[in-house]
Amino acid sequence: MGNPTAAMLVIGDEILSGRTRDANMHHLAGRLTEAGIDLREVRVVADDAEAIKTAVRALSEQHDSVFTSGGIGPTHDDITADCVAAAFDTPIDVREDARALLQAHYDRQGLELNAARLRMARIPESAALIDNPVSTAPGFSLGNVHVMAGVPAVFEAMVTSLLPRLTGGAPVLSDTLRIDRGEGDIAEPLGRIDAAYEDLSFGSYPFLRDGLYGANVVIRGVDAGRIQAAKAELKAVFGEDAH
Amino acid sequence: MGNPTAAMLVIGDEILSGRTRDANMHHLAGRLTEAGIDLREVRVVADDAEAIKTAVRALSEQHDSVFTSGGIGPTHDDITADCVAAAFDTPIDVREDARALLQAHYDRQGLELNAARLRMARIPESAALIDNPVSTAPGFSLGNVHVMAGVPAVFEAMVTSLLPRLTGGAPVLSDTLRIDRGEGDIAEPLGRIDAAYEDLSFGSYPFLRDGLYGANVVIRGVDAGRIQAAKAELKAVFGEDAH
Repeated sequence: MGNPTAAMLVIGDEILSGRTRDANMHHLAGRLTEAGIDLREVRVVADDAEAIKTAVRALSEQHDSVFTSGGIGPTHDDITADCVAAAFDTPIDVREDARALLQAHYDRQGLELNAARLRMARIPESAALIDNPVSTAPGFSLGNVHVMAGVPAVFEAMVTSLLPRLTGGAPVLSDTLRIDRGEGDIAEPLGRIDAAYEDLSFGSYPFLRDGLYGANVVIRGVDAGRIQAAKAELKAVFGEDAH
Repeated sequence: MGNPTAAMLVIGDEILSGRTRDANMHHLAGRLTEAGIDLREVRVVADDAEAIKTAVRALSEQHDSVFTSGGIGPTHDDITADCVAAAFDTPIDVREDARALLQAHYDRQGLELNAARLRMARIPESAALIDNPVSTAPGFSLGNVHVMAGVPAVFEAMVTSLLPRLTGGAPVLSDTLRIDRGEGDIAEPLGRIDAAYEDLSFGSYPFLRDGLYGANVVIRGVDAGRIQAAKAELKAVFGEDAH
């Protein structure tokens, strides 16, 4: 479709062990769709330096932007910043601009900027800071990789800080038609309409609810009128089973 | 740690667009942790043949097991089975064992096994079927890749069918009884029989068809004789309403 492409890298043992259910993927996916950026792939890896570096390099080469989530806090297992720097052979150390932000933050709270907290000021050379209005410790953008926190409220605030800086294509619009029929009944007419509307994409997402089979058919494209025309054709096929 | 390692591949535009929040990753992560299998990576890719094949090959080489979720229904965007076969250069076509399962299922429902539904019988040569007690259309294991449905209730049932095969436990068997009565009539006798058969598990999946309420009751356990005994007790309660 010509939109810029993106990938997400979620870093966290707690997701892979099943202790925590990731929320950031779903949030970012919605925000990027609104912004006209095409999220093509998500990877979830453990707090493991080789796994993070390998994924950062691969995704950075394949996509216009990469968004990471997790591993930038003050504890020993927060290794994302160092791994992203290493992936690009970029020096990293405590940076004065980030240290000043944290110093002011902890002074306000009457807390000490100890060695652990100072880890959050480790920012690669030449990286641009991403504002964190929730808890101050910044994210950063290095090349096309945007490094953000894992805590959902902070992640979401950072996405809000970052998105206007990125260039989106035309926003992708979508509309959904719920069809209370099995996908086996939907497949043939949907395939026909899919072929007739080459500028749109059609996805069929089946569900089983209260013992009833149905599917949400999602129509996506950049032209609202075309989406409505295709939706009307589908409604005409399925009559009162389409909502 | 010496545990076997695993990766998951989630296939679905609907996750990447933010329309649907994935539930299967969190479910599988918890189940694998219980089973002593170390989930090391998850990837989410679009309904795109190259992306699926590339991810299947990479994850299959790097891990002991790969679990996929999504893209095995009857519509044109369900391409997972063909992509997994292609990733391993394995022929794929409608397979007689899978077709027989579907034929019996749709015969019972009085529905036609049309061309779209028959797509769900496309199974690679030499693959082992994964039992689907919820909606019949099977998953499959090809090499170390286990291909399962995206609908959470079906995905979870398939994981239950599959896991004993991977961990050396006894395989879980299942049988289904269709009962043409509302769940309110089924609950009491089912609860009684559930309590009497501690070695079995009972699931009730309600439906509404042609204005009639019913439920598919799935009985699972490792002892076929016990499953048949419990099924006979249920049949005795519901008489000609049980099929």
